[in-house]
Amino acid sequence: MVRVGVLTSGGDCPGLNAVIRAVVRRGERHWGDTLVGFHDGWEGVIEGRWQELDVEAMRGYLSRGGTMLGTSRVHPWMASDAGADGSDGPDNLARARATLRDLALDALIVIGGEGSLATAHRAHVEGLVPVVGVPKTIDNDIPCTEQTFGFDTAVAIATDAIDRLHTTAESHDRVMVVEVMGRHVGHIATWAGMAGGATVTLVPEHPFDIDRVADIVRTRHERGRYASIVVVAEGARPVPGTMDVAEPEVDRFGHQRLGGIGHAVASELEVRTGFDTRVTVLGHVQRGGTPTAHDRVLSSRYGVAAIDAVHEGGLGDMVALQAGVITRVPLDQVMGHLKGVDDDLWDTANALFEARLDDPM
Amino acid sequence: MVRVGVLTSGGDCPGLNAVIRAVVRRGERHWGDTLVGFHDGWEGVIEGRWQELDVEAMRGYLSRGGTMLGTSRVHPWMASDAGADGSDGPDNLARARATLRDLALDALIVIGGEGSLATAHRAHVEGLVPVVGVPKTIDNDIPCTEQTFGFDTAVAIATDAIDRLHTTAESHDRVMVVEVMGRHVGHIATWAGMAGGATVTLVPEHPFDIDRVADIVRTRHERGRYASIVVVAEGARPVPGTMDVAEPEVDRFGHQRLGGIGHAVASELEVRTGFDTRVTVLGHVQRGGTPTAHDRVLSSRYGVAAIDAVHEGGLGDMVALQAGVITRVPLDQVMGHLKGVDDDLWDTANALFEARLDDPM
Amino acid sequence: MVRVGVLTSGGDCPGLNAVIRAVVRRGERHWGDTLVGFHDGWEGVIEGRWQELDVEAMRGYLSRGGTMLGTSRVHPWMASDAGADGSDGPDNLARARATLRDLALDALIVIGGEGSLATAHRAHVEGLVPVVGVPKTIDNDIPCTEQTFGFDTAVAIATDAIDRLHTTAESHDRVMVVEVMGRHVGHIATWAGMAGGATVTLVPEHPFDIDRVADIVRTRHERGRYASIVVVAEGARPVPGTMDVAEPEVDRFGHQRLGGIGHAVASELEVRTGFDTRVTVLGHVQRGGTPTAHDRVLSSRYGVAAIDAVHEGGLGDMVALQAGVITRVPLDQVMGHLKGVDDDLWDTANALFEARLDDPM
Amino acid sequence: MVRVGVLTSGGDCPGLNAVIRAVVRRGERHWGDTLVGFHDGWEGVIEGRWQELDVEAMRGYLSRGGTMLGTSRVHPWMASDAGADGSDGPDNLARARATLRDLALDALIVIGGEGSLATAHRAHVEGLVPVVGVPKTIDNDIPCTEQTFGFDTAVAIATDAIDRLHTTAESHDRVMVVEVMGRHVGHIATWAGMAGGATVTLVPEHPFDIDRVADIVRTRHERGRYASIVVVAEGARPVPGTMDVAEPEVDRFGHQRLGGIGHAVASELEVRTGFDTRVTVLGHVQRGGTPTAHDRVLSSRYGVAAIDAVHEGGLGDMVALQAGVITRVPLDQVMGHLKGVDDDLWDTANALFEARLDDPM
Repeated sequence: MVRVGVLTSGGDCPGLNAVIRAVVRRGERHWGDTLVGFHDGWEGVIEGRWQELDVEAMRGYLSRGGTMLGTSRVHPWMASDAGADGSDGPDNLARARATLRDLALDALIVIGGEGSLATAHRAHVEGLVPVVGVPKTIDNDIPCTEQTFGFDTAVAIATDAIDRLHTTAESHDRVMVVEVMGRHVGHIATWAGMAGGATVTLVPEHPFDIDRVADIVRTRHERGRYASIVVVAEGARPVPGTMDVAEPEVDRFGHQRLGGIGHAVASELEVRTGFDTRVTVLGHVQRGGTPTAHDRVLSSRYGVAAIDAVHEGGLGDMVALQAGVITRVPLDQVMGHLKGVDDDLWDTANALFEARLDDPM
Repeated sequence: MVRVGVLTSGGDCPGLNAVIRAVVRRGERHWGDTLVGFHDGWEGVIEGRWQELDVEAMRGYLSRGGTMLGTSRVHPWMASDAGADGSDGPDNLARARATLRDLALDALIVIGGEGSLATAHRAHVEGLVPVVGVPKTIDNDIPCTEQTFGFDTAVAIATDAIDRLHTTAESHDRVMVVEVMGRHVGHIATWAGMAGGATVTLVPEHPFDIDRVADIVRTRHERGRYASIVVVAEGARPVPGTMDVAEPEVDRFGHQRLGGIGHAVASELEVRTGFDTRVTVLGHVQRGGTPTAHDRVLSSRYGVAAIDAVHEGGLGDMVALQAGVITRVPLDQVMGHLKGVDDDLWDTANALFEARLDDPM
Repeated sequence: MVRVGVLTSGGDCPGLNAVIRAVVRRGERHWGDTLVGFHDGWEGVIEGRWQELDVEAMRGYLSRGGTMLGTSRVHPWMASDAGADGSDGPDNLARARATLRDLALDALIVIGGEGSLATAHRAHVEGLVPVVGVPKTIDNDIPCTEQTFGFDTAVAIATDAIDRLHTTAESHDRVMVVEVMGRHVGHIATWAGMAGGATVTLVPEHPFDIDRVADIVRTRHERGRYASIVVVAEGARPVPGTMDVAEPEVDRFGHQRLGGIGHAVASELEVRTGFDTRVTVLGHVQRGGTPTAHDRVLSSRYGVAAIDAVHEGGLGDMVALQAGVITRVPLDQVMGHLKGVDDDLWDTANALFEARLDDPM
Repeated sequence: MVRVGVLTSGGDCPGLNAVIRAVVRRGERHWGDTLVGFHDGWEGVIEGRWQELDVEAMRGYLSRGGTMLGTSRVHPWMASDAGADGSDGPDNLARARATLRDLALDALIVIGGEGSLATAHRAHVEGLVPVVGVPKTIDNDIPCTEQTFGFDTAVAIATDAIDRLHTTAESHDRVMVVEVMGRHVGHIATWAGMAGGATVTLVPEHPFDIDRVADIVRTRHERGRYASIVVVAEGARPVPGTMDVAEPEVDRFGHQRLGGIGHAVASELEVRTGFDTRVTVLGHVQRGGTPTAHDRVLSSRYGVAAIDAVHEGGLGDMVALQAGVITRVPLDQVMGHLKGVDDDLWDTANALFEARLDDPM
């Protein structure tokens, strides 16, 4: 019977509420714990904004997207804004420490992606609070786990969109370029490309040759298939020197505008092939809404394992899926690198596209 | 027992195949007709590309998006490209006439939107071929009918996306701007805004005051709701002089890039409110994929009515939905204007938004 | 500025929450009303169980199925259970009167189907409370309105199921019988049958000849289509004397077990055709879950119109959809009969089935 | 460059077409193979009904449910029907052998469940034809692989139904019993129960005590939650002696009628708790329709691996998913037992239900 905090950090992700619900159900009913949820990630720790969580408070949240606790990208080692008089801002770390001390927490469960897990690890090793990490990201790029929750939902949404674009492509004999999420890795693009029957898929792990892409689309055309779907991960980039890509547009608020690479690829393809080409940028819809059944189960299993870890010697660990079983890995093994699409899967994906991207032309 | 042609013209739209299937089933089985489908709209008439259609050929198409006949924006009165030697291009009208004469068609069923129906009317009155029109457009802007097929599906897709964006907006305390289709009218925006619980919705029929929009979002914020959804029709425009809107970007192929007004509204809202704001441009996914049950029924009813019209004195008419019943209206009553969102519905929609758009600030 | 009650009565239906939300938003913001929601239909009026409703309380309910107020089939003129000593039970009517007097309600909005609207009418004419009715039923059988809310969602769910059954039917060369809701009318069956591409559809309005049904399935088989889908409304019945149908099984609690007619039709078809036949009984899933975009819009429009009716002389009326516009009809015109599938639509549906049900064999 | 046959055997399953498509794309393009598809499983081998398969023939099948080849439960060692004169029927094995010899196949890819894989193994070891197996079943009960394709789709469909039943349960304060597929194992029930937030779930692996189930539902009621969802696998059975369960009804054609255990559980719960209880039997919809993105990817990976196995020494093996990677296991390791829900997952599932099924009362 201990006191455990929970927070969600970083980008929105389907399944966050399912994790929290599982932590609370298992913690309250099996372990007799007291559960505290911080609002807006570490911001709530710093500012002392939190609520008690119990089974009743979580009713109805299993199937809801988003996070009932709110999220942010703030963390305790982040410098505060300076005071109006030029003085230093408040000390975030000291404030976080005070909140955690006042609440007398025995552990903190941090549900987050790569950056958030690194912060969690720091909090753990620097003695701020003992932590357990839960791997959250639609991008599926956390090492040491076969899958992060949210990924399956993002792939499902992207695939549903590609299914719809097929019919338009076929009715108009068009090339449809679909930009999906994935700034650093191409898991969503590769899976949705396979599931959606893409003609070809471009990912950050493998710089593409736009001439080869055009060649593949043209080959397909010559085989009598006048419609093509090209899936492009947000972070896909050409082989240097083969194609100009403008820097992503950034608005005056610093938001990077999606669609840059999608529009660039479409334009270059149209130049090279002469085929009518259109772009769809899926954007934020990929990260919202009700999680798939698959993600609800995975999230729930992670939540149970996370609170169990608090009681069973797992402080400092991240819960992980390996070989179909939920297990734990030390957070320090997870830090510092992203998991890209593995070569076997990429090879299989290419076997299913119209032609291999890496074949000579 | 007559010979009837069918073609689909203009933009892709869910339900096109369901119309064709219904024409063919009713024509072949009830009337004993011979049915001919032209490829790629009028292009197939001009170029003599067509296929016979029978019940067997249509198996499996009821639930498929797109059009199995292909579509285009070509028509017989469109000038051909000039010959390489500067001579006149081939005479499209003469070629179309030749095809229709060779096939000895008694009538042509044209499934299309405003422009395509105008062309159909011209073909009818100028004696090219007797026609029956079927009102197709996701935009729902054809007069004299309560609904066009494809509209319900577009609204369903947009609403599904808005549902997903809600959870992201709430998790991050954000304003989400969603640009939906509707270059000239705001039916999709109004319905999806109502169905999706939008904070406010902007449509072409009612120029908006961006300060009023910002005011509504701020009011909501003050009521403790830190997440807002702003639905913007592609063709919504500000009251002149209240906000700069760049001309839509056009790429080097003449495709107008979507997202212009969405990004402009988001940027102005962020300036005025200081709230974190993001944009999603739904684009082509709204017009593809399997039709809703509602659209399959409406399309099927239109198809049966269209072939019946050929036999029952309806040449020169468009089939239409009025008071729940399929009826017919002369094509010349349909021409020349678009049906916008009616005032009663707009009033009801405003009653459900966070505040009325047209109230004084 | 008046005091208005709201209750939901009868079977669960997608869109109930959307109606309540619209009543509250319009009532509170436009008219300045005070809104009271009764729990579990008239039961809450009788027992004095209610809550105040305001815009904040309704947040998040637009897209949720079911009714946040609960529902029941109880009404004030229903006899109470007798006391344990054999004495009369409490007087429901008197108790309802007391609650309404204590709350000093100016009007009551009753959201219900045929039976509930009849009770509402009685409450109105007998002076219990002035009412406005809102036509709710997945069955779409309320007269004087083109559509009830909930119907579109039920059709969508049934159609989705039929889509899935098609592939199983085709893989195994089977006849699949699907029983859908509709005890007295065949709207769901007819629409879902059309939308799902049924081979044939059986409805309560037209007693069927099982030999004719078998004949149609066999004809299809001879045309090389070895898979058939037969949609059967729960209340469909054979022409007397043509086929035995057992009375619906009733369990010891008085619940009528669904599936009776579905299993009977399947068995008879298998006997007559020798084709492998299976049954699916869709049941309760047809009435739950998130409403379609179409139903959310319709429900919202009904809600706004209902509270407007309270203020604009519409007491004693039901809101209705006619020719695409929300209007009102006196409740007494609605009472006493159910709206069946109209002949034109039935004729169109039959044109799309494998063969007409009413043709001679 | 070899000649390879493909067949689908046993029950319909989402993803069958995706496997075939992947086999063909990889086989034709990478290995230069000739592919032959048998109709209706082994029936096509016995009767010599087959077609050549190439990439073009498979266009559009990735997202389609069912199997374009048809399926059956026939196999070569099955006795034929006797001749009308009482003579032995034709020798199925000899006929299969003849077809395979005539086609000069180098290998046969058998896509099937437990029984079909056993037959495949027999064909392999008895020298009928060298085989590669692909594990297909919505039940997920094949050993040596973490997941079979079709399972994710079945869980998704069941979860969607449970989501819908929740709102009805809550509106009426009801217990809803949902019977899902799983005659021998409870994977679908366990996953859908977790994903759908079931109050309790009953599976074949753990005989249930109906008094304990009633107790859990009552406990929930006392906590103020008047709606409960009880998920029951088709093959769940009570602890002997605790409750009568009638033998499944079998119709005159030998089809076992679903719903037996669902109705029995509902009836007993209503007796014990007095709460209003209803039953939904999901049935065949769980095995049809478009596969989820997850299943399309898994099916595609299996298909590529199966044809690779033909070329890379994998004859006699089954392709399998282990630790996120597609690998192979000898078919003889797979035979003879079914994989049930593992104890860890069952333990986690119970942590999320209203109370543990195996706790003392």
